[in-house]
Formats: sequence, structure tokens, C-alpha cells
Amino acid sequence: MNQPAADTVTGTFLPEDRAVAAPTGTTILDAATAAGIHLETICSGRGTCGKCRVLVKGYEAPAPTPVDSRRLSPAQLQAGWRMACEHPFSADGVYTHPLVETQLRTVQSAGIGEIQLRPNVQQHVVTPAAPDLEHPVFDWPRVKEELASLAGGVDASLAALRRLSGVIREAGNGPITATLVGSRAIDFEPGDTTAAPALGLAFDIGTTTVVGALMDLESGAELAVAAELNGQAVYGADVISRTTFAAQGEDDLETLRMAVLETINGIIDRLLRAARVERRRVHEATFVGNTVMLHLLTGIDPAGIGSSPFVGVTTESLTTTAAALEINLEADAGVFLFPAIAGYVGADLVGVVVSTRLAQREGNVLVIDVGTNGEIALVASGRILCTSAAAGPAFEGAEISRGMRAVAGAVERITLGEAGPELGVIGDIPPTGICGSGLVDAVAELVRTGIVSPTGRLLPPDDLPGDVPKALRRRVHFDDDGGRFLLADDDPDAADALPLIATDIRQLQLAKAAIRVGVDVLLERAGIGPDDLDEILLAGAFGAYLDAAAVLNIGMVPPIPAERIRPVGNAAGLGARLGLLSLNHRVEAELLVGEVEYLELSAVADFQWLFADAMAFPEPA
Amino acid sequence: MNQPAADTVTGTFLPEDRAVAAPTGTTILDAATAAGIHLETICSGRGTCGKCRVLVKGYEAPAPTPVDSRRLSPAQLQAGWRMACEHPFSADGVYTHPLVETQLRTVQSAGIGEIQLRPNVQQHVVTPAAPDLEHPVFDWPRVKEELASLAGGVDASLAALRRLSGVIREAGNGPITATLVGSRAIDFEPGDTTAAPALGLAFDIGTTTVVGALMDLESGAELAVAAELNGQAVYGADVISRTTFAAQGEDDLETLRMAVLETINGIIDRLLRAARVERRRVHEATFVGNTVMLHLLTGIDPAGIGSSPFVGVTTESLTTTAAALEINLEADAGVFLFPAIAGYVGADLVGVVVSTRLAQREGNVLVIDVGTNGEIALVASGRILCTSAAAGPAFEGAEISRGMRAVAGAVERITLGEAGPELGVIGDIPPTGICGSGLVDAVAELVRTGIVSPTGRLLPPDDLPGDVPKALRRRVHFDDDGGRFLLADDDPDAADALPLIATDIRQLQLAKAAIRVGVDVLLERAGIGPDDLDEILLAGAFGAYLDAAAVLNIGMVPPIPAERIRPVGNAAGLGARLGLLSLNHRVEAELLVGEVEYLELSAVADFQWLFADAMAFPEPA
Repeated sequence: MNQPAADTVTGTFLPEDRAVAAPTGTTILDAATAAGIHLETICSGRGTCGKCRVLVKGYEAPAPTPVDSRRLSPAQLQAGWRMACEHPFSADGVYTHPLVETQLRTVQSAGIGEIQLRPNVQQHVVTPAAPDLEHPVFDWPRVKEELASLAGGVDASLAALRRLSGVIREAGNGPITATLVGSRAIDFEPGDTTAAPALGLAFDIGTTTVVGALMDLESGAELAVAAELNGQAVYGADVISRTTFAAQGEDDLETLRMAVLETINGIIDRLLRAARVERRRVHEATFVGNTVMLHLLTGIDPAGIGSSPFVGVTTESLTTTAAALEINLEADAGVFLFPAIAGYVGADLVGVVVSTRLAQREGNVLVIDVGTNGEIALVASGRILCTSAAAGPAFEGAEISRGMRAVAGAVERITLGEAGPELGVIGDIPPTGICGSGLVDAVAELVRTGIVSPTGRLLPPDDLPGDVPKALRRRVHFDDDGGRFLLADDDPDAADALPLIATDIRQLQLAKAAIRVGVDVLLERAGIGPDDLDEILLAGAFGAYLDAAAVLNIGMVPPIPAERIRPVGNAAGLGARLGLLSLNHRVEAELLVGEVEYLELSAVADFQWLFADAMAFPEPA
Repeated sequence: MNQPAADTVTGTFLPEDRAVAAPTGTTILDAATAAGIHLETICSGRGTCGKCRVLVKGYEAPAPTPVDSRRLSPAQLQAGWRMACEHPFSADGVYTHPLVETQLRTVQSAGIGEIQLRPNVQQHVVTPAAPDLEHPVFDWPRVKEELASLAGGVDASLAALRRLSGVIREAGNGPITATLVGSRAIDFEPGDTTAAPALGLAFDIGTTTVVGALMDLESGAELAVAAELNGQAVYGADVISRTTFAAQGEDDLETLRMAVLETINGIIDRLLRAARVERRRVHEATFVGNTVMLHLLTGIDPAGIGSSPFVGVTTESLTTTAAALEINLEADAGVFLFPAIAGYVGADLVGVVVSTRLAQREGNVLVIDVGTNGEIALVASGRILCTSAAAGPAFEGAEISRGMRAVAGAVERITLGEAGPELGVIGDIPPTGICGSGLVDAVAELVRTGIVSPTGRLLPPDDLPGDVPKALRRRVHFDDDGGRFLLADDDPDAADALPLIATDIRQLQLAKAAIRVGVDVLLERAGIGPDDLDEILLAGAFGAYLDAAAVLNIGMVPPIPAERIRPVGNAAGLGARLGLLSLNHRVEAELLVGEVEYLELSAVADFQWLFADAMAFPEPA
């Protein structure tokens, strides 16, 4: 307060235009920090992160230190950029710093909740200084200089450079708008075009269904969503058949690549039409999907994943351009594919772990992405373990006598009451088949009522427990073809009786046993029991429709209180959105795949015994 | 010698397989250095350069320090990579380090002399560990792990990843060969294919002529050279007319881009045929050329260069792929375009400065790339200054009455003796015209003999000095069309008299004056006089043919002893070769463009007066 001011110097920080006083000898970084001005730094002034650069004006920029020279380009040094942690804050100094970090905003996004936006796409309006004979600086260096103070060191794509001189001409040396993907300028437009927000796409490439969401990168808002059948479906229903098809020859791999590409490009067309936005406003797309799907999307041979040891070509994330993958966006639009963990623990599970914040959870939490291939992750005591379980197609309603996908006419909910089965049918129309969640419900109810034994046998009418209501007994029929339970009609010969046959029950039993083994092995490896589980999250479009009680009744998960089981919807797709809206979540995904412990179930010594145990249904309460 | 060994620990360095003893507490880096094992480091152990990484085996890798985490990827940390400067050298430690730096070799290369090879292209033979259920590691991570110890952190192109699983299959889990451009694997082949050396191309894109050289990147040898007329020539003889043509519309810019591309791709075909090598062995191409030529090659609009302040789009170097520029090599083959300095001081001059080692010269050295546009650089007292001079087409033999390019039939040397003119004709056939060097010789001799006055006037026979030999006097003819000097015959009406007319002399006078002004301005800015010049280097295909005495006689350069003038041939093209054979020279080019001081002659206040002075020819001795 009453300290002498003799040893204090005053300088200015831009763009705040704030005069700051600091003791002689203070570094520029410390002077800024003391005044509450936020210069980006990761290493807190140790000279290792290269983030705290400032443009020094007002006096001759000091000679570059070794740290300056390592962190800054010759052109930047020439222009007067220095590391703020390396040089003293000086009288008359005017220090301009990039604003990137302070532009972070927290928004509410549909399906995501609160998220701190930090998209990889940035738009900046700059007015390059007009050149003259004294300063005959080329177009790009002038624009780059302006961008440096807003976005740090940047480069430009060839397509953007091809456009630049025309844009500057059209702007009459006035403002132009630069669009950056990462640190690369991919587009320039005359004037300030930031009123049209930057957009991005988040894709979940499922074996059966591809879902795309068009997102506003500035508000986090979802502008449109579209889902289509994966065009590869005609070449095989599951990843194994696709892998086999692709392995026939190079052309067949290319056929599958083109098929999913057409699906993606079709979805993009629909999204753009629905939201009435221009294609050139979309600057980036993120992708999650299982490992085979992302191999096929990138044209990389997934053959190795088809057989033991289930090893494909790459699990790494891929940062590339729309043109490189032939995605119908501007050629330089960014593309980010999430990293994967293993042949059957794909980028989709990574998306699930990211969107469920699993790695940040304090307790013991299990997440299951239920599907043909069940992907399971467990966070316990700071460790993350994961595995995959070959559940087979029962959960998709496939290879079930009257199975169907979850579309209109599918039975999705079943309760067995005194008056007989009560069916919930999608679209409230007469039932034409049964989908996965209906199958789980049906078997759960049959087990609960004792109509199906703990070993999975549909009991003949004479063997049924005495307390099975008459209206249910009438639905059990046995003949030369074996037994069946009629879901929709008493009359076994009725066209719409909707029978569930013994092998249907067996299919579901195999599917749930596969998942259960995976869960049990993960718990065992983590050294915890079912009681230690704070929560089980059911992910995936299918998981969202599962009834917690039914899941417990079929024994797909160990016995825990039903309220600890929670559906989390399309968590993989949410992960893709998070990665689109914030780079932090991409970093999180990269760190995750480096830390996660992957267990290969088929390498577990006593797998067959564990599987046999897991086949049993729980005894009715 | 007799020191106790109690405080010493012993570990091993790979790939040397050398046991090393060091005192407890020594860092791994210091232990290696003390034993003469060269780990790459820039910061000498300060933890800032991230270069000295080693793979730690033999004991559990120590917990990563913050420096480790910043410098190494999660996957690398997981694999056991650590920074050698961060951890103690430990008993039983086995430390594997990358070998990149120690692979430097010094070779002799045609036209270049001694050069330390450090190509951007590397080939490595690796044998990825076979995966099993316990270690279900994907193809690329396994290959990457092996490559890391040889080449440090690498990534792979999509095309390479698409090829990888087939290559590993074909190799039967045996060795495969990876080709890297920079830190990116662009190709894999089964087996050890390094017997076929990696090749590269060095191009000099001239306005008139495109020259390409096919180089062996392992020996530095030149395998083939080919030159062709730039296919753009039909759209204009010089950069101004090309720029004007390109400015007509986008299609016209594309026409010029395709024209030079066809020339380049034609040259590549010729080179491959001549050397009998496969296209896929060529992994990189470097380019120099003037700024307009490199704009047109990249499809970037050069319109701004056409008029004051002569500002184009970019002077930066460009690192890209063959596919991006549609150069007919493997899609992922690397492409490097040298950086430029200004609209008329292009990457070609940067190539000249690099190949003449100008920046490393102790004295004061001037280099002139003589052509339609004369590019001039001066190194003096550690400064590098440069400028460009609009010499016009006289040096190319254009706009000269009997001018022609330097092909068979062109007069390239002229001496005026007692017996008359002695002509040196290319191809030793009867002369059909005169090329640039012949024109310089002719005018120099006419000035020397006093037939042309210091003001540039061809003197009528009656005004000629008394000592002009009779055989020469007979060649001077004046009539209603003005004066002329007959180079080849006494009879002015002879078809093969080869007259040099007054405007021819005036054209050369304008050309040499332009260069002279540039030279004088650079000397003045550097604060030195002609006597301080240690050397003048004449670069370019044309410069190589100039006679030092003639250059002095026409006053294109200030008076200095003729022995200080030296032709250096196609120094620009040599620069492209140097950049191909060693990354050091690319770094040098980048640093150079950041340091060089560019002078725009048209911005010099008294340019018109200087130009008028420079028009004068020196008085005959």
C-alpha cells in the first residue's frame, strides 16, 4: 500500500487494453497473472509448454532465448512474438496475447446437459493490413499475422490459399472471415460471416443403423438428427459376416466402404435439408462405431478381427479430412474418428465411457452397451477395465422365430398377469413379432412365473407350478414340434398367436450368459463383488428400452437393487457429440485408451465353466 | 582407476548392446553421453526438447514425470518410453534409443560436392511381434512400436494402413519394410526391400524450362536429369504474360496449372524410363521456381504479383503430398516447395543462396541469377539483402531482331579482332541467330572497341575511333532504317549477315542497367563499395555462359577484377537437390527467408536517376 513505486514499471496488455504495473524483474507472464489477465499456460512458466506467447511492441523485442527459438517459428520471432515466461515485463511494453482460452463458454446441449464448449472449429474475423511498396507482405502472411493474435500459430489448406486472394479482393481490403479446423485455416470468406454459425456432424456408425446429428458448434444446439439403415446390411447382418464379405477381395472391401459412405452422405443430405443450412457451413464431423465399422469406413481391411486373436490394423484415433474419406462435405472439412480399444471394444465404447463420465466416477460403476456384441466397461478404484461378450443376435430380435427389429408392430413390453399376457406394441397396432426388449421381458416374466425353469426349460403344462394363473397356463402348448408359449392368442393355430419357442428362449439364454460372464470376470479382476457396484448403466438404443427388473430376472447382471440400474440411451453417439463440441473430450478419449485394461474373454482360463454357470436363470423370488 | 565400485551401477544400451557403468544418481542421458553413446538431444538435458527418449526395459519403467507426460504419448508411456534426462540410470536397465541422428552419412554428389545426407525419406525393416490372445495388439501399433526405436514417434498414412494387414500376412509375420516421409509411414512392403534404394526428385520450375533430376537418396547419386520446355510457354513467354493470362478467369489459372503439371509428369516419365526404376520407389519431390511459377503449380492465383505492390498469396514453403498437387507419383509421396521471399525474389533465389552457401560466407559476396527477372542477393557483414530487377527479355534472346534461344545455330560467343568478328556458334553450324550470352559478348566487344559509345549509340563509320580495324569498320552499315553491325557477313544484303541493330543494343542496355541498379542499391544499403566485394557469382543456366570480361565491359556489375566473377551454373536446381538430400538445407531455407532483408527497387526514392546512371556503358580502357 505504502510501498515505494520506484521499482515499478508500467506496461499494457492487449486486447484488454489494460495498463498494468509490476515490480521490475517480474516476467511478462507473472505481471499478467498478478493483474488477473489470463495468458494461456500449461507449465506455469517453466518454459516447456510454449503456450504463453505474446507479441511484444513498444520497445525492440528482446533477443530470442533458446526457449523462444524452440517454441516460435522464425517468422513469429521476426514479428516480435516471445514467450511471456522468458522475458521481463518492461516499461512502455505493449503485449498482445491470443484469446483462445478465454473464449470457452458453457452451454446446455440437448441430450448432453451442461458442456463447456471448446470446439475444434473456430471462426475469426480479421482485417489484414493493406500492403504497399514499403511493406509488400503477401496475402497469407498478413492474414496469418492477424490470426496469430486470436488463435495462435496457424497454417492454411491449399484450397483456402487458392481462395484467399479473390476473397481479399472482394472484401476490398476490409474484414474477412477465416474458418479454422484445429490450427488450420480451411476457408476464407469476404466480410463478417459469423452470423451463420459454424456447424458440425456427430456420427454413430452402427452395424445395423447409422445415426447422424447436425450440431451448432457455437450454441451446442442439436439442429437435426437422422438415422438410416447401414447400407452394408445387405452384405451381412453382423460384423462377422461383413468381415467375411470384405475378406473375399479388395473389391468387396471397397463395396462395403462405399455402402456405408452412401449411407453417411445420404444422412448428411437429409440433415442439411431438415435444418435448411448450406453444406459449406459444416466444418467437421466426428465418428464413433465398433472397430469393424470404422475399419470399413476408412477402407482398412478388418479381416484379422474375424478370428482369434481378433487383431485388426489400427485402434488409433484418426484426424483427417472429408476428402480423404470421400465424405460429402467441403474437401478440407475436418474428420475425427474416435480411438478404439480392441477388435470388439470399439470407438463406440470409448464414446460411451466419455459421455457417461465413467473415468471421473468415484464409486464402482459398470456400463454395458448391449447388442450383438456386448461391450462392457467397469470403473473400480480408479482402474478402468473392459471386455466384450459375443452375445449373438438375439438382442436384435434376429434368429428368433418371430423376432423383428424394434419397429411398428413389434412387441416391446410384456407383463404376465392373472388375466394373461399384457403386450406393449410399438405403434399401438396388432403385434406382428417381437423385438429384443420384448424378448427379454417375455423370458424374464416366464422365469419369474416359473413357466421357464432356472435351467431354461419351458415346462410342459403338467409340470407348471401350481400358482401359475389359468390364463397363462392356456398359453403353454406342446406338440411334436416341441413346446411354445403363445404371446398373443390362446389358439396355437391362430395366425397371430405369436409363439415363443424353446430355441428362442435358448438364444436369449446364450446372449445373456455371454454378457454375464463378461460382467463377472470384470468384477473378479477388479476384486469387487456385486454389492460393491454403485450403478449399472445400460447403453445403446437397445439398452435404453430394457426394463431393470427384467434384466435382473434373466440374470444378465448380478443381483443388485433394481434402482441401481439405469438406461443411458445412445451414449456412444453422445460421446461423438461431446468430441465435436469440445476438444477436451477427444483428449479424454485418447488418454482413456492408453489407460484402460482390456480383458480378452476367450483367453480367460475357465471361460467354459463360467459360461455354463452364467446360463442359469435366477430362481424365482 | 582405483575408485571403489560400490556406488556404480551397470546397465545396457541398445541397439549398440553395450554395457555401461555409471555412478548412482547419474541420469540415463548422462550415462550414455559419458560412454560415448549418442542420444539425440537439443536442450542438453534440460527437459525441454523431448528428443532423448529411451525405451526402458529390465525393470519396471519409473512413474512418468510431468516432462515425460508432455513429451510422450499415452501409448508410448504405456510401452515404457521415458525421457533419458528425467530418470536415473539403473542397475539391470536396458535402454533402447532411436538411431535417426547417428545414421547421418557424408557422400559425394554430382554437381553438389560433399554433402551430409539427411533425407526426409527413411526406410526401415522391422519384424512386428506376432499377436496372441494375451497380447492382442493390432497391426499398426505393433509396427509402430518397432519403428519407434528406429525412427522415433511416427504415424501412418491412410493408404499405408490400407496396405498393412495384407503386407504382414504376405510376410508371414516376418520382416516388413516401412518407408517414412518425415515421421509418416507412407508405404509397407513384405520382406526387406531396402536393396532397391529410396529415390527422390528435385525440380527447378523455370518460366521457360523445367528441369528435373532423379536422385538416389541413399548415395546422393544423380540417376538421370531431364529438361523440357515449360508447357505454359504457349500462354505467354514471361511471368507477366502468364499472370495476365491466369487473371482472365479461374479456368485460365487451371489451364496454366495443368500445363506445368503435364510438363512435370512428362519429365518424371522420362526420368523413370532413363534410370529404369519403378515409380513407387520415388518417395519425395522438392521444387524451386520463381514465385509466379510456384503459385501456378499450386493453383494459387498470382494476380497480385502482376502489379504494384507485387504481392501474391503466399511465400511460405509448402509440405504436401503428390496427390494434393496431382503429381504422378504414389499418392502419399512427399512434396516440398521451397519458401520464397517476394513476388520477384522466389524460391529459386532461396535455392541459389542455399546451394552457394551464401549465408555461411565470411566475406561480402554478391550472387546474381540473371534472367528476364534478375534476382540479386548480397551477403555482407552477416546481413543478407536481396532485390529483383526487371531486366526484360533481352538476356533470353527475345525481342532482339535476330535473337533466339541458346540452341544449335545460336551465336553464343563473339570476339572482335583485327580480322573481323570471330563467332562461337552452338553446334558448330552456320549461325542462324544470336542468344543472350552472344548478345552480351557482342555489345561488350562493340563497347570495348569503341564502335558503340558509352551512351549506347552505334557510331556511324565516319565517327568511329581511328583504331577500329578495317575488318570491323566494314561491318558497320547505316541507311534509312538506321545503323547496324553485321556479325556474319560484310554484305548488308546477304541473307546470313546477322545484323545487330541499334534497338538490340538498347534492349541489352536496359537489361544490364536494371541489374546494375539492383546491385548498386544493395551495396549502398549494406554500406560497402565494389572494392569490398570478394566475389560475384553468376547463377542460372544463362549466367553460367556469361564471360566475366564481357559482364564487366557492359557494366552490368561494378568494376572489380574479372577473376572475382564466377559462374555457378544452375544453383537454384542444386538448392532443390540439397533440400531433397538433407533436411538441414530445408531448415536453412526457412531460417533464411526469416532473416533476409528484401528491398523493393521501385520503392527506392531516386530509382529513375540511378537507372539513368546505370544505362551508361563503361568507357573503353
